[in-house]
Amino acid sequence: MKAFNIQHPNEALRPLIQEKIDNLNKPKGSLGRLESLAMQVCLIQQTLTPSLAHPCHLLLGGDHGIEREGVSVSPREVTWQQMLNFTRGGGGVNMFCRQHGFHLYIVDVGVDYDFPADTGILNHKIAYGTRNFLYGPAMTKEEYEHALQVGVDLVDKCHAEGCQVLCIGEMGIGNTSPSSIWMSLFCQIPLDECIGAGAGLNTVGIAHKREVLGKALDRFLQYKSVRSPSEEVIRCFGGFEMVAAIGAMLRAAEWKMVILVDGFIMTACAMSACRLYPEAKDYMIFGHCGDESGHRRMLEALHAEPLLSLGMRLGEGTGALCAFPIIDSAVRMMNEMNNFDHANITKYF
Amino acid sequence: MKAFNIQHPNEALRPLIQEKIDNLNKPKGSLGRLESLAMQVCLIQQTLTPSLAHPCHLLLGGDHGIEREGVSVSPREVTWQQMLNFTRGGGGVNMFCRQHGFHLYIVDVGVDYDFPADTGILNHKIAYGTRNFLYGPAMTKEEYEHALQVGVDLVDKCHAEGCQVLCIGEMGIGNTSPSSIWMSLFCQIPLDECIGAGAGLNTVGIAHKREVLGKALDRFLQYKSVRSPSEEVIRCFGGFEMVAAIGAMLRAAEWKMVILVDGFIMTACAMSACRLYPEAKDYMIFGHCGDESGHRRMLEALHAEPLLSLGMRLGEGTGALCAFPIIDSAVRMMNEMNNFDHANITKYF
Repeated sequence: MKAFNIQHPNEALRPLIQEKIDNLNKPKGSLGRLESLAMQVCLIQQTLTPSLAHPCHLLLGGDHGIEREGVSVSPREVTWQQMLNFTRGGGGVNMFCRQHGFHLYIVDVGVDYDFPADTGILNHKIAYGTRNFLYGPAMTKEEYEHALQVGVDLVDKCHAEGCQVLCIGEMGIGNTSPSSIWMSLFCQIPLDECIGAGAGLNTVGIAHKREVLGKALDRFLQYKSVRSPSEEVIRCFGGFEMVAAIGAMLRAAEWKMVILVDGFIMTACAMSACRLYPEAKDYMIFGHCGDESGHRRMLEALHAEPLLSLGMRLGEGTGALCAFPIIDSAVRMMNEMNNFDHANITKYF
Repeated sequence: MKAFNIQHPNEALRPLIQEKIDNLNKPKGSLGRLESLAMQVCLIQQTLTPSLAHPCHLLLGGDHGIEREGVSVSPREVTWQQMLNFTRGGGGVNMFCRQHGFHLYIVDVGVDYDFPADTGILNHKIAYGTRNFLYGPAMTKEEYEHALQVGVDLVDKCHAEGCQVLCIGEMGIGNTSPSSIWMSLFCQIPLDECIGAGAGLNTVGIAHKREVLGKALDRFLQYKSVRSPSEEVIRCFGGFEMVAAIGAMLRAAEWKMVILVDGFIMTACAMSACRLYPEAKDYMIFGHCGDESGHRRMLEALHAEPLLSLGMRLGEGTGALCAFPIIDSAVRMMNEMNNFDHANITKYF
């Protein structure tokens, strides 16, 4: 399997960063979470004057074999329809990318549709969707490696452009299903507690989803141990867009980028990435705790504190994008706020 | 007393706004809080295409007689020092105003200092700080009316410039003290539960603050009923910058502006404004729930759900400013997101 070289950020700079934060002209600690965010970004970048140059958003699309079992309220064609809609600028992800100055890459990693050549969608298609994991692994080992590499290549491209902050979103009808199974296996939480309404299933729909996913998990456990290597868990259930996201996160951590993590599906990818390389978590900022049942528990399992909690569940990376200005505020604090010496303020403690 | 003409927004447009929101190309409700924010702003502006033109931030400064009793960790001179620092662009409020495109007005409503004429600080000084409310009302009836009018005049100026969204911050050493007493009297919560650390008091300091404020409240209740008119409660304890904030909020509601409410002190002002005119609350968005003990309880008493909870307690309006991009996102959703018809997406429910 592809190996990544991910290190914890060097801690030697921490006291100097803390001293700078504490000497800004405000009561100590009074900017709360902005101060801990500033510390994280400074450590990642090994600087007292951090920056968030060239923010990039990867919108990764892929279809899922499991969708054939009726586990989603939305039909499969919505994946490619939304991908095309994103190219026209009318999706949720588009407006938030515009608002916050993110460069948007729309990437076909495995959508069940042939996009015309002139749409601007980057073609990294591995297949027309994954296999139905009710009957076997969602992808082959070769496809798994390929999907990781797609993420790596995309991040290399962003890095070459000067990107310091990476956000990732997904479009893939059915992809809460693999996320739930990953969560159950990685966090050892009963599957039922990992399954939610996705884009809007009703109670009957959720019950059906539970039955299908329960069956898939049982079959997996007939052949594989509950302690299977993480790669196997990821490969047997994951979507191409999800494995590409894992590859992108790991590569971004290698490049010491700030990684902005979105909702339930991207948190499942982040958790998987951290199973492979626990050091990757130091580079991640969790943007939003969504409504999908299980998201908060998965964040807790990761000891992650999301910045926002706005009840969003659109996917596409929209929750994480909405959190970006807060990180920007933290960075501005380090660069723009006067310190007590400079400001001639009585330092009051 | 000055009268305001504040109306609940007309509800007739609600079904049309809801229809537009539900037909945007996303699963129904999937943008969570952004959808309810969009509804509120659309109702305030009576439109399906809201906007947030010319955002203005009023930074209101004033000193407090009660500060002489040692209820704050910071000395009084920090008020004028910080006001001057804001004119040089190095405060917390400055960087967030720059980040989010707010026009910043720095206003002396009652600071205990003569600012040089060339600082850009707007001079609406009523006195060199309020009286010490341990020994009598913080301000006279004339001063109270004057302070309300300062807020009114400032908002009229913003309105004339085309302002549709108003944020208010404060600078006034000691102003958590009047906020705590207002909260106790208006919410009928025991005073002790309304008192916190302010800018950083230790346990001894908090105990002293409790003693001083308890004595002040007891004396007030010797002469006045616990059911005194709201104006009397506001006048006897409030700061000039706080009463000006109330006047500004009420005038902004008259002008049908969106009002962005900051932390503990501004929430106390918002609560007071709503005691005078309950309809004003329809125009308010609560930006941030801070760390100051009692802030969450006051928000609950107002049935207000803050957008952020980042542990900030700097004041100056910084918490509210940090929430602005979320409101902007909600407005963009209404104006920029495709609907299902336009986007050629299978509408999935």
